[in-house]
Amino acid sequence: MKKLAVAFQGEKGAYSEMAARMFFNRSLEAIPCQDFETVFKMAQKKNGPSAIVPIENSLAGSIHENYDLLVSRPVPIVGEIKLRVSHALMALPGTTPGMVRRIYSHPQAIAQCRQYLKKWKRAEVVPAYDTAGAVKMIRTGKMKDAAAIASLQAAYDYRMTVLARSIESNKANYTRFLVLGRQKARRSAKWKTSIVFALKNLPGALFKSLGVFAMRDLDLLKIESRPIHGKPWAYLFYLDFAGNQSRELEKNALNHLKEITLFLKVLGSYPVGKVVAPRYSRR
Amino acid sequence: MKKLAVAFQGEKGAYSEMAARMFFNRSLEAIPCQDFETVFKMAQKKNGPSAIVPIENSLAGSIHENYDLLVSRPVPIVGEIKLRVSHALMALPGTTPGMVRRIYSHPQAIAQCRQYLKKWKRAEVVPAYDTAGAVKMIRTGKMKDAAAIASLQAAYDYRMTVLARSIESNKANYTRFLVLGRQKARRSAKWKTSIVFALKNLPGALFKSLGVFAMRDLDLLKIESRPIHGKPWAYLFYLDFAGNQSRELEKNALNHLKEITLFLKVLGSYPVGKVVAPRYSRR
Repeated sequence: MKKLAVAFQGEKGAYSEMAARMFFNRSLEAIPCQDFETVFKMAQKKNGPSAIVPIENSLAGSIHENYDLLVSRPVPIVGEIKLRVSHALMALPGTTPGMVRRIYSHPQAIAQCRQYLKKWKRAEVVPAYDTAGAVKMIRTGKMKDAAAIASLQAAYDYRMTVLARSIESNKANYTRFLVLGRQKARRSAKWKTSIVFALKNLPGALFKSLGVFAMRDLDLLKIESRPIHGKPWAYLFYLDFAGNQSRELEKNALNHLKEITLFLKVLGSYPVGKVVAPRYSRR
Repeated sequence: MKKLAVAFQGEKGAYSEMAARMFFNRSLEAIPCQDFETVFKMAQKKNGPSAIVPIENSLAGSIHENYDLLVSRPVPIVGEIKLRVSHALMALPGTTPGMVRRIYSHPQAIAQCRQYLKKWKRAEVVPAYDTAGAVKMIRTGKMKDAAAIASLQAAYDYRMTVLARSIESNKANYTRFLVLGRQKARRSAKWKTSIVFALKNLPGALFKSLGVFAMRDLDLLKIESRPIHGKPWAYLFYLDFAGNQSRELEKNALNHLKEITLFLKVLGSYPVGKVVAPRYSRR
C-alpha cells in the first residue's frame, strides 16, 4: 500500500507529526516543513500531500498565522483531532542535570512549563523555533550542557535521555489540529463547518450574523476575530458551527449569511474530531 | 507640578512610552518594566503609578497576555489611544550598512518589516524581547556589526544613526493602547465600555449575549475569545461596546447579560481614544 504523504511544520518527532499519525492511523510519509506557509503551499499543489496544522491550544489560544493562511490559501479543512500535550525534558545520554546550562524549546512550550523551570536556577531558558527542532539541534551539535523541552516521541527519535516527564504546569493541555487536503471527508454522525467572513457596515451586523445560525438551531462552537490588513479596526470573523454545508438547512444558513457579509468563505465541513492521548512509537 | 508616574513595558524610547506621553500630553515620570505582569502589579498598588499597555495591533491582532491580565488583575481601564506605528533601522554612529551582520528587534516588528529585510541578505535577523531594548543593547554593548528595528524616538534616546525610515511593509499599522489606573476618567461625548464574561451552557448563549446590546441599540465595537485555563474548549469573551456603565441603559444591558453569564467583569468605561501620529522629542 502506497504511503500517504502528510506535510507538517517542524522536525521529525514534532507534536504535529504525532497528531497526523493518530488521525490517519496508518503508515505515513511525514514531510517536515520549516514554516506553516510552506505546509499550506505544499498542500495546495496538484497531487500534493495532505497537511496537518495546529489551530488552537486550550491554554495558549489560537495560532493566528494558520487562521490567516486558511483565508489566503485554497486548501480545504477535511478533518480535525485534539491531542493531549505532555512535555518532557531531555538531554544527550551522559548529560546529568548538574551539567545543564541552557534549556531550549518553543516559546509556547516554555510558557507551559514555567512552574517546573523555576527549579532550574542555573540554566538559561532559550527560545527555539520548534520543540523537536531544539532536540535535533542538541543531537547534531553534540551539546552536552544543554537540554530541550519536547514530546517523548522526540526523545525516542533522537535517542535522548529523559530527565523529567509531564513537566507542564496545567495538565488540561490540548492542541486542536486541522487536517487539510483534497481527500473526501469521512462519514460521521457529528459534523462541524468552519467559515470566515467580513461583515457589511450595518447596525447590529455581528448579532445578525449569529442569528442566522441561532434561528436554525445550528449550534455555534467557536468564534474568533482577526484584524483585516490595511483596514485598521475592521475584523474578519472565524466561526465554527455544528453542521455540514452539503445539507439543506446549513445551505440556507450560509445563503442568509451572505446577505449581511461583504466576504464569506467556507473553509470546510468535517467530522468532529476525537480527543486522543499521545502514543509514542520507537522507530 | 508633580510629575505623573506611568509604568510601561520595555525600555526608554519604547512605543508604549510614546503613547503615554501623547495620551497625557504633559511631563511624565515614565517607569520602564521588564514585562506586562510587572506593569499591572505596579498599577494595582495603593498610590501606585498609572500604566499603559498595548492591547491590539491593526496588523498582528490582539496582545493576549494583556487580555488575560485584565481579568486577573484589579486595575480598571480609564482611557485608550491609537498610535500610528512606524519603524526605523538604526545602528551606532560609524556603523555602515556593509558592516551589519545582525539585526535585532521584537518578533512583531520583525514580521512587520519582513519585505524590507529581504534586502539584508548578509545579516542574520535575531528576535529580542523589546524594540527599544534591542537599541539599548547595541549601545551598551558597543556592537558595531549590529542594527536594530525600533521607533525614531529610540534613535534619539540612544544617539543612534538612522539607516532607514518607515520600513514597515504596510503603512496602515496602528497599535491601540489601554491606559490603566485609578484616576477618574475624563469628560467625553463618545464612551466605550470593555467587559469580559463566560457564558452559561445554554443553547444560543453567545447569540443571546450579543442580543442584550443589539436590543438596546448599543453598538458592538469588538469581540474576542480566549480559552479558559483548565476548561478545554470553553472560552472567555471580551467585548467592547459603545456606552458608559454609569448610564441607565448600559446598566440594564449589563444586568440582563448577568442572566446568561457565569462570570462577568466590567473592565472599565472610558472615552473613545484618538488616533495619533508619532511625535518624537529630543531630550
